[in-house]
Amino acid sequence: MNADLKSIGHIATPYNTVDECPANIDFNGPDCRLLLDEEYKAGIKGLKPGESILILYWLDDTDRTLVSQHKRNKTSGEMVGTFSLRSPHRPNPIGAAVTPIINIKDGTIAVKGLDCLNGTTLLDIKPAIKIEK
Amino acid sequence: MNADLKSIGHIATPYNTVDECPANIDFNGPDCRLLLDEEYKAGIKGLKPGESILILYWLDDTDRTLVSQHKRNKTSGEMVGTFSLRSPHRPNPIGAAVTPIINIKDGTIAVKGLDCLNGTTLLDIKPAIKIEK
Repeated sequence: MNADLKSIGHIATPYNTVDECPANIDFNGPDCRLLLDEEYKAGIKGLKPGESILILYWLDDTDRTLVSQHKRNKTSGEMVGTFSLRSPHRPNPIGAAVTPIINIKDGTIAVKGLDCLNGTTLLDIKPAIKIEK
Repeated sequence: MNADLKSIGHIATPYNTVDECPANIDFNGPDCRLLLDEEYKAGIKGLKPGESILILYWLDDTDRTLVSQHKRNKTSGEMVGTFSLRSPHRPNPIGAAVTPIINIKDGTIAVKGLDCLNGTTLLDIKPAIKIEK
């Protein structure tokens, strides 16, 4: 498993502390931007405003040992499995958000309402597949 | 960036060569299973049949240098950006699938119609957020 992840850029959000970050993405939330590194800017050719993308990013300063944990904002009561939560504290702290593209300009993608810290490392962008339940 | 990914288990699918793998997930496709390693089995407590999950997995033997490429099954014509495609050939070859849980038994989650190779390394499972466009 050759798993040396590469940064492809970073994410600009209004949140500079973990406590400020909302629990979930919000399509009507504040403006955020995906800033591709120079060498990866050509990689977004073909994406269009209005298209939904899956964004993967790396969550720093997390506890990667927790197999079970409390739900957010709880410190007592029953613990649940880490994989039943979207907590950043997980064996592989890869954040994921699906959101529509607002616009694209100069290798930067504008989106709305991401839940991660300003400066978060961007790992991947790909077209989202719609969930049909 | 401390990005030493950990395997949390592996994925059982009917596909043993890349050519057999379908281009996309199919909720009516063949039975597949997410097999958690013993130490991570407690991590799925709280997940329920019928719930949609986002599955992240590691795609082996991919070309991680391609910023642009042809669409699948094309070898000529215009190249498009890697991040506009779901191709496995990308800087960080993390596969992502959103699919409902069929059932859960003994630390194994049954799902349908994944598009990856049998034995693919499982990285993460988390509740999916429904796309609302």
